[in-house]
Amino acid sequence: MRKSGKRFLNRACVWKQEMKVEEILDIVIERVKPTHAEDKKIRKVVDDVIRKIRIQAEKIGVDVKPMLVGSVAKGTHLKNTDIDIFLLFPERYERGEIEKYGLMLAKKVMKGEERYAEHPYLRGVIDGYEVDIVPAYMVANGRAARTAVDRTPHHTEYVRKNLPENLKNDVRVLKQFMKGVGVYGAEAKVGGFSGYLCELLVLYYGGFMDVLNSASKWKPRVIISIDGKKFEGVDKNSPMLVIDPTDSRRNVAAAVTMDKFALFIHASREFLKNPSLNFFFPPIKKALKAESVAEIIKRRGTYFFAIIVDKPKVVDDVLYPQVQKALRAFEKCIRESALGLIRSAYFVSDRIIFIFECERGVLPMVEKHRGPPVWSSHAENFRRKWEGNERALSPVYIEGGRYYVDIKRRETTALEVMKKCIVEKNLGQDLGKNFTMGYEFVQGDELLRFCQELGTFLSYKFPWEE
Amino acid sequence: MRKSGKRFLNRACVWKQEMKVEEILDIVIERVKPTHAEDKKIRKVVDDVIRKIRIQAEKIGVDVKPMLVGSVAKGTHLKNTDIDIFLLFPERYERGEIEKYGLMLAKKVMKGEERYAEHPYLRGVIDGYEVDIVPAYMVANGRAARTAVDRTPHHTEYVRKNLPENLKNDVRVLKQFMKGVGVYGAEAKVGGFSGYLCELLVLYYGGFMDVLNSASKWKPRVIISIDGKKFEGVDKNSPMLVIDPTDSRRNVAAAVTMDKFALFIHASREFLKNPSLNFFFPPIKKALKAESVAEIIKRRGTYFFAIIVDKPKVVDDVLYPQVQKALRAFEKCIRESALGLIRSAYFVSDRIIFIFECERGVLPMVEKHRGPPVWSSHAENFRRKWEGNERALSPVYIEGGRYYVDIKRRETTALEVMKKCIVEKNLGQDLGKNFTMGYEFVQGDELLRFCQELGTFLSYKFPWEE
Repeated sequence: MRKSGKRFLNRACVWKQEMKVEEILDIVIERVKPTHAEDKKIRKVVDDVIRKIRIQAEKIGVDVKPMLVGSVAKGTHLKNTDIDIFLLFPERYERGEIEKYGLMLAKKVMKGEERYAEHPYLRGVIDGYEVDIVPAYMVANGRAARTAVDRTPHHTEYVRKNLPENLKNDVRVLKQFMKGVGVYGAEAKVGGFSGYLCELLVLYYGGFMDVLNSASKWKPRVIISIDGKKFEGVDKNSPMLVIDPTDSRRNVAAAVTMDKFALFIHASREFLKNPSLNFFFPPIKKALKAESVAEIIKRRGTYFFAIIVDKPKVVDDVLYPQVQKALRAFEKCIRESALGLIRSAYFVSDRIIFIFECERGVLPMVEKHRGPPVWSSHAENFRRKWEGNERALSPVYIEGGRYYVDIKRRETTALEVMKKCIVEKNLGQDLGKNFTMGYEFVQGDELLRFCQELGTFLSYKFPWEE
Repeated sequence: MRKSGKRFLNRACVWKQEMKVEEILDIVIERVKPTHAEDKKIRKVVDDVIRKIRIQAEKIGVDVKPMLVGSVAKGTHLKNTDIDIFLLFPERYERGEIEKYGLMLAKKVMKGEERYAEHPYLRGVIDGYEVDIVPAYMVANGRAARTAVDRTPHHTEYVRKNLPENLKNDVRVLKQFMKGVGVYGAEAKVGGFSGYLCELLVLYYGGFMDVLNSASKWKPRVIISIDGKKFEGVDKNSPMLVIDPTDSRRNVAAAVTMDKFALFIHASREFLKNPSLNFFFPPIKKALKAESVAEIIKRRGTYFFAIIVDKPKVVDDVLYPQVQKALRAFEKCIRESALGLIRSAYFVSDRIIFIFECERGVLPMVEKHRGPPVWSSHAENFRRKWEGNERALSPVYIEGGRYYVDIKRRETTALEVMKKCIVEKNLGQDLGKNFTMGYEFVQGDELLRFCQELGTFLSYKFPWEE
């Protein structure tokens, strides 16, 4: 299958593990690479769709070129892949027109559900394969893209032209590794590495093991330019900058968050030290039982609480940024209080559960409030504000050259801190709206209702650990 | 008495208060300036001592010049002043000799108690006046001083020559103001302004009110050079640098702490805004009753505790630096714990009582321990140290690109934090020894034993406030 095992082993591996890595990677390929029979079946679905689109397009007189894109087109797809077919329209069409004709044609060839990325598109199932039919503009190159999806055909072309046949399995193995350790996918829910990024990394470093060897030494900020071009886009200071060879204004790794970046480095190092199939196919974790959860919480001596709110009815790519934004807002408020944030997490089901662990849940009434130095130009204002103020629990006093005053704390419980945060902070458009309609604050024994989430929260284990 | 009221009023005073300030300062002078009768009595004591010293010196054949120094010599003394008489020896005498002959002569003219500054000296009482007879070297100028006390005669000479008669009462008023607001005295116990510094300030600014007006605008660092000379000494970065006109290597304000510096600025501003006799003669504060103390403590919702240790049998100038050092060590340990220090204080009687107010007295067992970034060269060490460590309560995990681990907190109560501090920190030579012999840790209701100290601790009032 793979011509040479050396690809995977050219650096940094401990000798006694060589055989083991080889074996592992062979098993991974076996499990994730589609068989010839499957590939034939996929080919048939693709050909059928493209043929039907052409016929329908001619019928209604629309100038459109159907094109297979994505991992199937590039030959880097895994088993049970999605199939992406783009309907490419010349630029003379209005945006409204390509959306109208695109959906119209798609609906003629398959039943499906209308979805929305930057254009509306149709998602259906044919012969067991999820098929997306997506209208886009046919543009000269990635740089000329009018919408984000217009680049996809150029990405497909680039990889087809540049990725050697013998590296395709390395891409498959890397994708599966990233899936296994939890960093695969550029969507907001994951904030990780896209399929295209996996292909570029393998192309750049020379193979799966080379990617891992390099990643184990990554530090932010990693800058990769495959063809030596300079980045011409807007720099968002993300931990990785991988310049898109089809459009030097775009960072292919823009979605990669600091957490996923660090996790991939860590996972690479761990795999190199101690390779195992678990990295690709993580073991199913046993959930902690309610008694264990209760016992751990008690033993830690900390304070746990949760905020629960209804899930807005929006797609994941709209939902997750809002959930992450809300979590950051909550964390900030807790940090500014004296509750002593230890950790936080969110869980999405039909509701959204935010869980927090803090050093304490109740604060003293008194808060020591620091003022300016006695000689500062603000000193008089500070004194005027606080002398005799109804929140002041002491006169203004001096310490180390500064004025201080003890004041009545406004929020003395976790609930009050969170209430204030919900009123004052932007928690995302749709999520914020749901918060105004009501939310649940849960602490103490009541928390054990969320035993499964707490179990995950408390387990701390990496996906590949048993 | 004072020739012109204008001295006190040449700047920044609100018109309607002018009469009031005048009246106040007249009353202060009335109360603190020795009468002619008292000055005659003092003169007689001084003349007697000096005459007797001369006779005795001739008898034993010692070449010594007795000299009245200090505030009496300068005419800036208050009522019930101390009298300082120096025995000046030529530099050809050995240090041991001047100490021997000095004490010998002093003992021939008065009974007294041997004390020790840089030389041993004798403190006695004559006609109700505390008299210090101090041996020193007669040196050409302050700069040539062989010991700290050798400068005193030169300070005396400098002020006698340079301080105009009409400013002497301003010095007296300033000294009394500083006494009243609690910043008078260069000894370690106070960390404030010496008499000589008061004289230089009045000389430099032109009068009592001018000192206050200037001080109300002071910021660190205030630099004063009366004769324009540059400082040639070692700079300790104290908030004030007043170059000694008799020795440009010496900062006359070296003893002034940041707290006393700030307090004097604050008091000056307050007096200028709202002049009152209370600044000079602070009202006696009513101590809080035990019930009030208990009620305040309860209402604040904070955690109070005290550490009590026997007072070492050493002079104040040795004791107070140690007590202050110990307090800073305790504060540092509390800040490094998560107890949340609010305030601290010490009280000296036959024992030393350290009182602390914290946000809490008990900490959770868990402590979130921050490690290096995943890509740091220290990352591997951190993981090796904590993976499977018996103090670890979690595996090593990743957050925001860093490794973290939850560990068992070593000290979970205020008592444990303090115990560790007492074992590990230098609390001063004599005080530290006493701590090793035993100390008391008091919290909860037991604390009400220290009702008076707690009352002072909780009152927060400035000395001049009622």
